[in-house]
Amino acid sequence: MTRIAIVGVAGRMGRTLVNAVQQDPQASLAGGSVEPGSSLVGADLGELAGLGKLGVTAVDSLAAIVDDFDVLIDFTAPRVTLANLAFCAEHGKRLVVGTTGLDDDELAQLDAYGNRVPFVFAPNMSVGVNLTLKLLQTAAKALGDEGYDIEVVEAHHRHKVDAPSGTALKMGEVVAESLGRTLKEHGVFERVGQCGPRTDKEIGFATLRAGDIVGEHTVMFATEGERIEITHKASSRMTFAKGAVRAARWVAERPAGRYDMQDVLGLAD
Amino acid sequence: MTRIAIVGVAGRMGRTLVNAVQQDPQASLAGGSVEPGSSLVGADLGELAGLGKLGVTAVDSLAAIVDDFDVLIDFTAPRVTLANLAFCAEHGKRLVVGTTGLDDDELAQLDAYGNRVPFVFAPNMSVGVNLTLKLLQTAAKALGDEGYDIEVVEAHHRHKVDAPSGTALKMGEVVAESLGRTLKEHGVFERVGQCGPRTDKEIGFATLRAGDIVGEHTVMFATEGERIEITHKASSRMTFAKGAVRAARWVAERPAGRYDMQDVLGLAD
Amino acid sequence: MTRIAIVGVAGRMGRTLVNAVQQDPQASLAGGSVEPGSSLVGADLGELAGLGKLGVTAVDSLAAIVDDFDVLIDFTAPRVTLANLAFCAEHGKRLVVGTTGLDDDELAQLDAYGNRVPFVFAPNMSVGVNLTLKLLQTAAKALGDEGYDIEVVEAHHRHKVDAPSGTALKMGEVVAESLGRTLKEHGVFERVGQCGPRTDKEIGFATLRAGDIVGEHTVMFATEGERIEITHKASSRMTFAKGAVRAARWVAERPAGRYDMQDVLGLAD
Amino acid sequence: MTRIAIVGVAGRMGRTLVNAVQQDPQASLAGGSVEPGSSLVGADLGELAGLGKLGVTAVDSLAAIVDDFDVLIDFTAPRVTLANLAFCAEHGKRLVVGTTGLDDDELAQLDAYGNRVPFVFAPNMSVGVNLTLKLLQTAAKALGDEGYDIEVVEAHHRHKVDAPSGTALKMGEVVAESLGRTLKEHGVFERVGQCGPRTDKEIGFATLRAGDIVGEHTVMFATEGERIEITHKASSRMTFAKGAVRAARWVAERPAGRYDMQDVLGLAD
Repeated sequence: MTRIAIVGVAGRMGRTLVNAVQQDPQASLAGGSVEPGSSLVGADLGELAGLGKLGVTAVDSLAAIVDDFDVLIDFTAPRVTLANLAFCAEHGKRLVVGTTGLDDDELAQLDAYGNRVPFVFAPNMSVGVNLTLKLLQTAAKALGDEGYDIEVVEAHHRHKVDAPSGTALKMGEVVAESLGRTLKEHGVFERVGQCGPRTDKEIGFATLRAGDIVGEHTVMFATEGERIEITHKASSRMTFAKGAVRAARWVAERPAGRYDMQDVLGLAD
Repeated sequence: MTRIAIVGVAGRMGRTLVNAVQQDPQASLAGGSVEPGSSLVGADLGELAGLGKLGVTAVDSLAAIVDDFDVLIDFTAPRVTLANLAFCAEHGKRLVVGTTGLDDDELAQLDAYGNRVPFVFAPNMSVGVNLTLKLLQTAAKALGDEGYDIEVVEAHHRHKVDAPSGTALKMGEVVAESLGRTLKEHGVFERVGQCGPRTDKEIGFATLRAGDIVGEHTVMFATEGERIEITHKASSRMTFAKGAVRAARWVAERPAGRYDMQDVLGLAD
Repeated sequence: MTRIAIVGVAGRMGRTLVNAVQQDPQASLAGGSVEPGSSLVGADLGELAGLGKLGVTAVDSLAAIVDDFDVLIDFTAPRVTLANLAFCAEHGKRLVVGTTGLDDDELAQLDAYGNRVPFVFAPNMSVGVNLTLKLLQTAAKALGDEGYDIEVVEAHHRHKVDAPSGTALKMGEVVAESLGRTLKEHGVFERVGQCGPRTDKEIGFATLRAGDIVGEHTVMFATEGERIEITHKASSRMTFAKGAVRAARWVAERPAGRYDMQDVLGLAD
Repeated sequence: MTRIAIVGVAGRMGRTLVNAVQQDPQASLAGGSVEPGSSLVGADLGELAGLGKLGVTAVDSLAAIVDDFDVLIDFTAPRVTLANLAFCAEHGKRLVVGTTGLDDDELAQLDAYGNRVPFVFAPNMSVGVNLTLKLLQTAAKALGDEGYDIEVVEAHHRHKVDAPSGTALKMGEVVAESLGRTLKEHGVFERVGQCGPRTDKEIGFATLRAGDIVGEHTVMFATEGERIEITHKASSRMTFAKGAVRAARWVAERPAGRYDMQDVLGLAD
């Protein structure tokens, strides 16, 4: 059993993480922290997460639960995450970091802990998205330059402000790299009017925005006679939470090092 | 049994029409014409179509088979079609016209035959596409301005030179018209970079180009909690040929008039 | 503005209904009831629904809010619903009933209120599902006996215990009825081993059970050359709540009568 | 340039192979055989394939073209294929075998040529299907026993007589094997009526039969929060022909041995 504590347990991601830990038969909920001075200090983590009383209460300092947990999960802010890495280094703990938005300086600081702390760092913890990236690499290498046209189509909810999604671009990049191409040269992001026939090496992107779609991505490889489509559909943020818990279990038995989800899933080259 | 003759029976569409007539238990193949002087005069229509000998041979003048057929199917060229309308008017025949590319003057001439000849004229004879247009109208009116986001996505083969497809635009127009909108004002044909959240009334278009896709169109209506998707997938030009044969059977029992596929399918308002 | 009160406001469906009313610019939240003696009497409806304080509190008797609302929404139990119909008859109120599980006697009692109360009764309030049923009827009638094969495929979460879903069966029935067929005679619910070629009139059903799929249904009409697919995807119970609010607004201006969602959507024959 | 000859060049698969060779810039059409005594001896292979005259004519004995080709492609019958293996062994040629229906004795004979002839033998030559099998293996191993439900859904034309398809079963077997399961124990081929909730380890199959669908297969891995779907869609027998040509180019540079499409695609473990 991996004993897991959650940073920022009162937020939406924090509460989803409580659910994911509770669902995992190989993980136990060891504690959770809220911001110092929060009115939720002492609240039951289960009640915060809509699960009923679990008998584990929110604290405002990791020091208070240092003997209770093995791995910390942190989807918060760069400053908080770096402080937590220092704490883990000092106390022999491990970390799963889903925090985003680190600048170059912060990334360098994070990287430096690779000598002292076993931690997983990934901007997208979804097991499915990370597996999909591996499948795309395999597919692109096998289909190579054999006349397969590649298109990426993604759909998200009406509130998303950018297009294509970061995940769609990442998928396109993985495919491009596997084929010795670049999105800069071969990405096609719009087709309107008399745009002419498709070129052999272009990688097309199409975007849909509608309703409450959490996130759907398909990469199509099509030639005369057949199509292969690899699709990921997210239905809730549980996909990220479950990936983080899986990473926590995995990193609990690793030496110091900075890992990513490809490592966790056993997909790294 | 509707006795059907086919103009231009040696072309790809002509041969597909022979197949479609042969498959229809309520239609019989009464004859087929080729260009005057063609080396295929006298060829068996079944052998031309890869069906084996049928005992009906190609002629180069409709006069030669005027007593054999009730309805003519014509997917050729504007000049030929107008001549055939004159022939049908004179001899009391009916016509199904799938010819495209008529200019305004030719359209006016065609229209004038509405007093004398029962004929069906439609740029896209596919039963499925025409039904889909009706379904879109029904859906748009029912969902109205109740917060459903509308997106049109289409996919075609790598050789298609324009985007979105004419059918996708037609679908968008039907939806827009049902909602009192216009594509000019509300159509969104590209989303790249920081494009901001979706607006309520926009109708989005997305385009894929890959492989040998004959033609696929989906219109999505999405809101919080649900999506409705109406999809048409063409897999071969049989979809057009079968629609034409169905139109031929239908127009065989109609008074003079210019009809379209909505009439044939009983979907006209 | 339609003033709406919600019966059973503390339950999952009740809280979703609070969200749906709040999102609708033409509806206002007029009140909500909980069971007599509940500890939640006096609780703020917004806080119950995770929306923050709205200034409307839960009561345990509709009499307490009788002057505040026009339409009641009730997704509870048969006994409660029949009592609420009596209350609405007495006080000139309207009702939207999403309650299921009424036996024949209870249905007869409910029906009898059609003379005195304007109310909408539908086992599935989803706008999309009800629209889909109409689209299926239109499609089946237009495609008729023209050689289109019909298949229904549905997917639901791993916990669903019956197959095919009630909604899939309803879709199949609507199609069958439009074609003069019956599911009893033409429904095909399994194909395993050497089952032989498809017959012309069969309506096939296929079932998937996986993960957290809320509910997806597709009806396919396929023939040589083309396919039409009509799909409904539910992503949350908001689809039912929004349908109920739309029904409430609609019934607010109707004379006494028992209505269903086809009436609300203007799709009744 | 790999010089390719085709056995049975007058059949549907033979003519498709001519097209596939012509499309491949790294392959040249070196010859084709028909049955001894056929009226098509001497016919131009391009005209047989609907491509216009190519200047290569059909022969009825491989001996007649033994100096012209490097690799033979054979999608015929077991007896013919074994004779061709003997011919290739004697003359130092290579073979691509798409023939099916070999019995145990014929398989043993075929296998024995692995010492003397470089040949590729695969019941399904589709690059996409073979790649998909590899992707399924990768996905199953990565998702392991982490609570992902697995479903296989396939659709074929109305004439197919068995269900599920051989390819669907193969896909299920690859997944099952990767997870230490068996279809015999964990395959679920029907769900009708009160079938209860899904079990953790079952692999479900669903079948659609409609219209002219050439062949579509999807394997879904779904859990709370996400789905991964891997889909193959065949649109014509070109998918098999192109795979065979790719195999011919590949085997042209291999030592004696029996290979399969996983070898050709570089996907073998």
